[in-house]
Amino acid sequence: MKKRIITVSREYGSGGRVIGRRIAEALNVKLYDKELIALAARESGFDLEYVKETGEYSTTGSLLFNLAIANLYGNFANMTGTADKLHFVQSKIISDIADREDCVIIGRSADYILRDRDDVLNVFIYADEAVRVKRAIEEYGLDEKNARKNLLKTDKGREAHYKRYTGNTWGLAHNYHLCLNSGFHGIDRCVEIILKAQA
Amino acid sequence: MKKRIITVSREYGSGGRVIGRRIAEALNVKLYDKELIALAARESGFDLEYVKETGEYSTTGSLLFNLAIANLYGNFANMTGTADKLHFVQSKIISDIADREDCVIIGRSADYILRDRDDVLNVFIYADEAVRVKRAIEEYGLDEKNARKNLLKTDKGREAHYKRYTGNTWGLAHNYHLCLNSGFHGIDRCVEIILKAQA
Repeated sequence: MKKRIITVSREYGSGGRVIGRRIAEALNVKLYDKELIALAARESGFDLEYVKETGEYSTTGSLLFNLAIANLYGNFANMTGTADKLHFVQSKIISDIADREDCVIIGRSADYILRDRDDVLNVFIYADEAVRVKRAIEEYGLDEKNARKNLLKTDKGREAHYKRYTGNTWGLAHNYHLCLNSGFHGIDRCVEIILKAQA
Repeated sequence: MKKRIITVSREYGSGGRVIGRRIAEALNVKLYDKELIALAARESGFDLEYVKETGEYSTTGSLLFNLAIANLYGNFANMTGTADKLHFVQSKIISDIADREDCVIIGRSADYILRDRDDVLNVFIYADEAVRVKRAIEEYGLDEKNARKNLLKTDKGREAHYKRYTGNTWGLAHNYHLCLNSGFHGIDRCVEIILKAQA
């Protein structure tokens, strides 16, 4: 069965974001990354920046969305951390997006959030550290020291976030349907393989 | 670049062996599994059964092979366990096979043994436990209790073996170039994806 939704989890500098964009273009569907999920949240009445700053959420949004949140209000009110509230709101947004349209979603533990659906292909993109440092230097214009620093910090953050919100260990093949070493295959081949796995 | 050698690591009941056989047939190359590696060892002068029973190795083999082992003799003599000696002999055999011919190799930590080559594609095949139990019942004619028992025992053994001889954690995507959930994709699709990744 053709998979309507593709989630792409990726290591820093692995090219996962580019691969996701290429897949979205090939399938003619929308790509959701951090920024677009924040935008979708705002359109639904949630200002993630506001949640971030105050640890609260705004209630100026659509009636339907507010009703959905109202059902879970106790849950939400009991969350102590801003990060938890942000994650909760993002999870709702991602579920809504998946209900509504075919798409590619980058990061945000979307693989886990959508785990009960059978129309999702979960992909993990990774590469050897040396390959990723080289890519970060070339693509993001960093020097080697900062490329390594960013890589360690970002990977560590993703690992901790994944553990906290999924209970699973970051980087285990079992979390995904398809795992690709982009340094080995190259970006083009990764795109071809994902399209084959999705069709 | 076309990869001459494909290693297939797999969880119990995931169909990795069948997938490996289908790949070997499609590429018209030999499939090496546990039994064929033992046979290759014997032809080279090593009787793995003899090593297993006595913890020693026979020296009746080919001159070249014995010379190669002689270079590493000190290393070999210092190994205390039979499992270590078996692993050492198998590693030599697998390296020799990779030098000699295009092939598919199932298990035996061949991904790690051949890690310094650039003509190898390392694949990991896995699936959800329920899928693997079902497969073990259907393919191996086991009842559910024994299927579960075999699954746990075999996976645990492979995990421990992998840790001991590679230092790496079994099941991490980073150990491989391509990881496929065979329960999700199905056997046919896995074969297609591997052939695409290899070409």
